[in-house]
Amino acid sequence: MTIAISLPNPEKLIWWTDHLGALLPEHEVLAAADITRPKEVTYAVVWQPPAGLLSSYPNLRATISIGAGIDHVAADPDYPAAIPVVKTIGPDMTQRMCEYVALHVLRLHRHLPDLQDAQRRGAWHQIVTPTAPNRKVGVLGQGHLGRHAALTLRGLGFDVAGWSRSGAAPDGIDGYDGGALDAFLARNDIFVCLLPLTPDTRGILCADAFAKMPKGASIINAARGAHLVEDDLLAALETGQIAQATLDVFNTEPLPEAHAFWSHPNVLITPHVASLIDPVSGGEVIAANIRTLDAGEVPDALTHVGRGY
Amino acid sequence: MTIAISLPNPEKLIWWTDHLGALLPEHEVLAAADITRPKEVTYAVVWQPPAGLLSSYPNLRATISIGAGIDHVAADPDYPAAIPVVKTIGPDMTQRMCEYVALHVLRLHRHLPDLQDAQRRGAWHQIVTPTAPNRKVGVLGQGHLGRHAALTLRGLGFDVAGWSRSGAAPDGIDGYDGGALDAFLARNDIFVCLLPLTPDTRGILCADAFAKMPKGASIINAARGAHLVEDDLLAALETGQIAQATLDVFNTEPLPEAHAFWSHPNVLITPHVASLIDPVSGGEVIAANIRTLDAGEVPDALTHVGRGY
Repeated sequence: MTIAISLPNPEKLIWWTDHLGALLPEHEVLAAADITRPKEVTYAVVWQPPAGLLSSYPNLRATISIGAGIDHVAADPDYPAAIPVVKTIGPDMTQRMCEYVALHVLRLHRHLPDLQDAQRRGAWHQIVTPTAPNRKVGVLGQGHLGRHAALTLRGLGFDVAGWSRSGAAPDGIDGYDGGALDAFLARNDIFVCLLPLTPDTRGILCADAFAKMPKGASIINAARGAHLVEDDLLAALETGQIAQATLDVFNTEPLPEAHAFWSHPNVLITPHVASLIDPVSGGEVIAANIRTLDAGEVPDALTHVGRGY
Repeated sequence: MTIAISLPNPEKLIWWTDHLGALLPEHEVLAAADITRPKEVTYAVVWQPPAGLLSSYPNLRATISIGAGIDHVAADPDYPAAIPVVKTIGPDMTQRMCEYVALHVLRLHRHLPDLQDAQRRGAWHQIVTPTAPNRKVGVLGQGHLGRHAALTLRGLGFDVAGWSRSGAAPDGIDGYDGGALDAFLARNDIFVCLLPLTPDTRGILCADAFAKMPKGASIINAARGAHLVEDDLLAALETGQIAQATLDVFNTEPLPEAHAFWSHPNVLITPHVASLIDPVSGGEVIAANIRTLDAGEVPDALTHVGRGY
């Protein structure tokens, strides 16, 4: 009954191994590199595991993703598709994401980039913006984080729509289903991407989508870098089709030094900090999910790579 | 039964005179400069009226302030103190102020100034901030706008306290009364000033107050410029006692070109745009209050200059 831990960052690897070892004394918790008997591994707790690692555990019962996404597990072509993946969504992650989305939607809604530009020029330039009920905001993705972000925006008064495969959305949020993407894109002034990364959503923020948005729309991407076609965004910023972009995630992280986003006046970069997992409360969620699995039950956050999210 | 209109901006004067004339056809509505029979003036609708104007109307029944503050009326030493003043708070003003407060508290809470500074340097620098429930925010002033702003912050998850003369605060907001100012100043990381401007609150944001705040506190002033001692703020920013200041109001507006705030790296200037009155809905509120007065009743927003707010 061994739990294998795999994370790319060596310090975080040690931290998580010690932390889960303390939380789950009934299990042997080891860094993947220290495992000599792979047959004894029943659970793997991972972030961006190397390809082939998880298929090397013949008795693996479940993989636990240290985060809300499972794309980093599904990216392994050798991943044994029958083995479930459990997502980890701590209460802190939801809170942090809602804060991030509220801040950055309000920043664009109230034209703060223009006000800060005026300050740099020493110009007293009043800008009157509509009120939030007159501002349409679209949230791509209505999973746990997308729903909560949409409700936070609604609480601030915004006119909010959510887009998801099923079109299901909480009360007060205007739901658009998979087939209604064009109408959803035409509806909103500000877009927030909180989609899972799947073959269907990869590159969804592209020239074609930007062209279907109202001229001068803005985008916020707090999901995965691969949702966005970065060159298409640069072109759309050039024409003014997209006014502003707020990006927390990138195709390559850290964002390479030479990337055009760094110095673009209409791009705000945040270095993948929208929603960090708090390791203390996140560890408790993971330990509770492992105990649920041990008891032969199914954690709420259990899914499969074939579903994609 | 004449209504006199007085605003310093000539375009706004014409707009308000026409707008209220259309809304109140039973009254004669005239710009103050066009009034030849001051004895017939029963109401004055004003923003920053010239000293002596209102005392020149012997039959004035009430002054209507085009805004939430009455300090611009009380500033006239000749103002006949027995004549009530009616404040104007439109629903849009509350919405706009809540948006402004949410945006700027979140911006400081999430260290956006530091993240933007890192972007300018091309640095991928992750900053982990506490979650909102672990951030203490204090709202100075618990009038209509202060209460709503506090509740908006509470809705985002912040740990919010309100300071006011009586100490009354809505459910979920930690109320501090006038005598508990020192404890209130020591409690919070981020302060939002939404006080009325009175002799008691003039200069309240001064060196003495800053020294009682935790080191590295931040302030947001969306009330009146005279609440803040500007030189004391510059000194407190210099020592780091105050980390960041977000200022919407100033002793002199527009802020003079040579002012040190313009180029200060830790001062964000917004040009008195936190809460603009929407003239269409604001005009409707004013017309309704005048009809209430005509009916011999007392509008909720009626006060006196002696009270100060």
